[in-house]
Amino acid sequence: MTVERVNAIGPAALQRVLDGRWAAVRDDVRAQMGGIRLHPDPDLGTSEHRDLVADWMRRLAESRRPHTGFDPAYGGEGDVGGVVTAFQMLGYGDLSLLVKAGVQWGLFGGAVQVLGTSRHHDKYLKQIMDGDLPGCFAMTETGHGSDVQNLGTTATYDPATEEFEIHTPDAAARKDYIGNAARDGRMAVVFAQLITGGASHGVHALLVPIRSEEGSALPGVTISDCGRKAGLNGVDNGRLIFDRVRVPREALLNRYAEVAPDGTYTSPIENETRRFFTMLGTLVRGRISVAGGAGSATQKALAIAIRYGETRRQFSDPATGEEVVVLDYLAHQRKLLPALATTYALHFAQEELVSAMHAVQAFGAEPDEAAQRTLETKAAGIKAVGTWHATATIQACREACGGAGYLAENLLPQLKADTDVFTTFEGDNTVLLQLVAKGLLSEYGARVKKLGPLGMARFVGEQVAGSVVERTGAPAMIGQVRHRDLLDRGYHRALLVDREDHLLAALARRLRKALTPGADQFGIFNAAQDHLLRAARAHVDRIVFDAFAAAVERTGDAAVKRLLDQVCHLYALSVIESERAWFVEHGRFTAARSRAVTTAVNELCAALRPHARALVDGFGIPEDWLACPLLGTDMLVRG
Amino acid sequence: MTVERVNAIGPAALQRVLDGRWAAVRDDVRAQMGGIRLHPDPDLGTSEHRDLVADWMRRLAESRRPHTGFDPAYGGEGDVGGVVTAFQMLGYGDLSLLVKAGVQWGLFGGAVQVLGTSRHHDKYLKQIMDGDLPGCFAMTETGHGSDVQNLGTTATYDPATEEFEIHTPDAAARKDYIGNAARDGRMAVVFAQLITGGASHGVHALLVPIRSEEGSALPGVTISDCGRKAGLNGVDNGRLIFDRVRVPREALLNRYAEVAPDGTYTSPIENETRRFFTMLGTLVRGRISVAGGAGSATQKALAIAIRYGETRRQFSDPATGEEVVVLDYLAHQRKLLPALATTYALHFAQEELVSAMHAVQAFGAEPDEAAQRTLETKAAGIKAVGTWHATATIQACREACGGAGYLAENLLPQLKADTDVFTTFEGDNTVLLQLVAKGLLSEYGARVKKLGPLGMARFVGEQVAGSVVERTGAPAMIGQVRHRDLLDRGYHRALLVDREDHLLAALARRLRKALTPGADQFGIFNAAQDHLLRAARAHVDRIVFDAFAAAVERTGDAAVKRLLDQVCHLYALSVIESERAWFVEHGRFTAARSRAVTTAVNELCAALRPHARALVDGFGIPEDWLACPLLGTDMLVRG
Repeated sequence: MTVERVNAIGPAALQRVLDGRWAAVRDDVRAQMGGIRLHPDPDLGTSEHRDLVADWMRRLAESRRPHTGFDPAYGGEGDVGGVVTAFQMLGYGDLSLLVKAGVQWGLFGGAVQVLGTSRHHDKYLKQIMDGDLPGCFAMTETGHGSDVQNLGTTATYDPATEEFEIHTPDAAARKDYIGNAARDGRMAVVFAQLITGGASHGVHALLVPIRSEEGSALPGVTISDCGRKAGLNGVDNGRLIFDRVRVPREALLNRYAEVAPDGTYTSPIENETRRFFTMLGTLVRGRISVAGGAGSATQKALAIAIRYGETRRQFSDPATGEEVVVLDYLAHQRKLLPALATTYALHFAQEELVSAMHAVQAFGAEPDEAAQRTLETKAAGIKAVGTWHATATIQACREACGGAGYLAENLLPQLKADTDVFTTFEGDNTVLLQLVAKGLLSEYGARVKKLGPLGMARFVGEQVAGSVVERTGAPAMIGQVRHRDLLDRGYHRALLVDREDHLLAALARRLRKALTPGADQFGIFNAAQDHLLRAARAHVDRIVFDAFAAAVERTGDAAVKRLLDQVCHLYALSVIESERAWFVEHGRFTAARSRAVTTAVNELCAALRPHARALVDGFGIPEDWLACPLLGTDMLVRG
Repeated sequence: MTVERVNAIGPAALQRVLDGRWAAVRDDVRAQMGGIRLHPDPDLGTSEHRDLVADWMRRLAESRRPHTGFDPAYGGEGDVGGVVTAFQMLGYGDLSLLVKAGVQWGLFGGAVQVLGTSRHHDKYLKQIMDGDLPGCFAMTETGHGSDVQNLGTTATYDPATEEFEIHTPDAAARKDYIGNAARDGRMAVVFAQLITGGASHGVHALLVPIRSEEGSALPGVTISDCGRKAGLNGVDNGRLIFDRVRVPREALLNRYAEVAPDGTYTSPIENETRRFFTMLGTLVRGRISVAGGAGSATQKALAIAIRYGETRRQFSDPATGEEVVVLDYLAHQRKLLPALATTYALHFAQEELVSAMHAVQAFGAEPDEAAQRTLETKAAGIKAVGTWHATATIQACREACGGAGYLAENLLPQLKADTDVFTTFEGDNTVLLQLVAKGLLSEYGARVKKLGPLGMARFVGEQVAGSVVERTGAPAMIGQVRHRDLLDRGYHRALLVDREDHLLAALARRLRKALTPGADQFGIFNAAQDHLLRAARAHVDRIVFDAFAAAVERTGDAAVKRLLDQVCHLYALSVIESERAWFVEHGRFTAARSRAVTTAVNELCAALRPHARALVDGFGIPEDWLACPLLGTDMLVRG
């Protein structure tokens, strides 16, 4: 293994690759918003901060950018991928604006678009796109965030008046943390247990007015304010309690279910759970957008920390007496460069995800249930891994900038505070990884079933052989890979796929016990929960790797390709390094090979060090949005 | 290995063990401060927040608590350990108060006490203790935080007027992030290069007035405000620039160096570097206090998250249909319980550290250079590991509380924001771990030297045997430990000691190359930097373990001892688990044993789950300081 030193690449060439399919949208946003100073005064009170973001929201609506994601039949452009790309670009600027825009046009507008039908579209879509009807997405309750299927709010149909009665039966059913609710929202998409004729049909969404045009809560609706949060204080999160609030029958967003005037319930999807997950699945865009926003915030933090790391000097080189630039220290490279490589990998995975969503959600496209399921699993996984990566990386960037990184004027505190909630909203990351694992398990079950008796026998044989290797440490499997170069992409993939497959197969074996009658299902599941989460994680690591590898392959510019090649190596090897205990425990690595991985990561850090600046500049973050005293560029925003 | 289920223990019995040597001080603080509501309104502006903390400071001074740490000859009580214990208790309350108090009485007052002599003590100590002379500790500069030996500020002696001229020669030499400087400080201990008769004698500390009693900056002093920070906004951090400010000769804190009226420089310590580190060493109290504050904040975050985890339910158990308490999930236990065990370990390590400091810094005690060195190394290591642990654990607690954890009213955001800077102030953690490693290396060098030729040969022989085991994976060494129970304290220690010793010996071998004439010293050091940091970390892990093990041993109550025994096992095994790749790579673990460690951690989590609440209640955090809506106890503070 020799890490080649590659030639310097300008950021523009990298940006061409990174900008990808929606490059034009990215350039438009840069041109349109890049000049607006999106850094609120850090000493702004909550109320003033909300005013400021509300003002930016108006400017965003006027730009007609949010329109682009809606149905062309209603004045949109149907460019779902484009609008999500534009949305995530706001993560380079201000995350309160990103989230508030996401609530209005993504969650609220998106739910009306995908769960409603023409009767809602005709009436509301234009107002929503124009920002004239500020809305909320009222799903989460105080008692239920992750387990949405068990929400407590009810929507009981009354055939006498042809109305639904929306009601909060107890304190746990209070709608909580609802963006846009505390101050601005006038209508809410409310998720509630739909009851008609005494029977419950599970969770459905209804449009419920909550506030008058003058801004006061409507009768029966109690609105309170969640108050100050760790971050995102430009967003007015609030709580909603409904006291037998009546809405017309047509308030039901009825794409997947209808209640006739007499109360008869019908749905094209008979199974209640399947119906629930179909409705929920259409809302995948929110999760994808959060992953994208987290990615932008991470890129911005790295841009700041790496530029600073190239100028900040500390302690002298005894040979020259000159102070050493901190990014020349291995420990500093270790803090930032593997994180940068992972950020690249996630960037390309995110673009693939947006493209897949664009295809699945295209207006007029035939519904493709399999593609939808794959999209949901990918979105859940990339959101979880990407937002955890954001939290860890922005933290590392803060620390890498020392005391300066703690000052609000240097932007990192706001990035940290704002992105923190990303790991638990739009799906708690741990719960999302469980979703991923469940998706993988059912796919695996289907695959195993298809093998037939003969294939099954061979399959089981392979599994047993694998575990013999593990138990004896026999070098059979190790032999296959021992002599492969540590900088071989195919080898990286083989390792990641092997880990993914093995973890999943072993998980399936462990959980099979739960199928025995009388088994302690919860106990069996719970004892394997860490295994399950590891399996999900291994899957996400592999798909992110594949996305990065594909991006490297399709890069035309040979010099850029050589550089990205090494960044991709660093990503793969840093994942493998952090999981190397597994590879040794399972007979995939000798001890010596395991140690060689650490050496390789160090060497790749050294090789990529000269390219660090170009790699962050390649993100194409508007300079005005990076400007801060720590980079000596605060004049840009203050002048 | 069978994890025994131990009996329930009341929090009071645990508190008796945790409160330790300064239990009376802890109880006093609980009684004295516990009733004061120490949670500032999260929407408070920076200026109002500073006012509030300034008011608390006055109440703290009136309580005469800060006096207890000073020289009895000046109205103090000489209880250094007691005052640090009291100080770290404030970490359960408000961290801005903790830091502001730390600046005034610990850093500023402490420097005057330990670096000054009677001429300073007579004049200033009473005013400082009473809080009538607010002061700053002006060490860090914009260009130098970690490498303090290369500060740029100068103090040039002028024998004509018998004055020092304090001067900021360039922008990099500006004093930065100085607590108490932006608003309140009237005097500063300024660290500057002392120059007399044209010769520089290295960094010394001088007392420099910066502000009039009316609050305006004195002539030649330019003061500016660091503005809003990620947290700790009740502390007024600022910047100081000196333009040839003159102070009398007596302003030099002259315990370790004197300048005669004619400019003659004398010092009891001839070597400049040694003198510098001796002066710096006396200031170890700041580092120890930060570690203690971080510990308290971590305990508070865990108390909130674990109490919440015991009431919050999500998803149903298919057997009972009842929703499961989230702390019953393995993944949730994994997030919180190993962190809780580590928090216990660090608590006892901290108490040992405070005791050691109390002995070394006792008024009237003979200086003990060896004890002082050991104290500094321990303090650096425990500060680094403890504050990183705080950042990671408080983050995990926030995530474990979901959206509720993101709301300011639930206290976690403030804990997170306030403690964040602990990893980089009072010594950047990475730099501190390097200090630890350097201390270990010089001790190791001395030990090796003492062996003599025969001992040396045996020693080298053992080293070589060790690396043969690693290269061949020969089971000799594994054999020794294979059959030891995974719940054996002696085994845990053997593993941690082995890793520590091996990492250090290997590091010494790698760095020996740097001694060859013409060697690329920086290159050799830098290539081994990750190894060096790992060696330091391994040392800290072992001393923290020893402190915990000693605490378990001295616990008289057999039932409490049994519980602590398991907590100590969880601490040790979670460290060993996270480092298990190393143990396998170095032939200490078979693959099977490595996997068994993970199983053991899971089983210990399950066994300790029923005790989680008692374990956090044992910290004895005043209920008023924990009160928040998430725990259903906000009435306490609001009523």
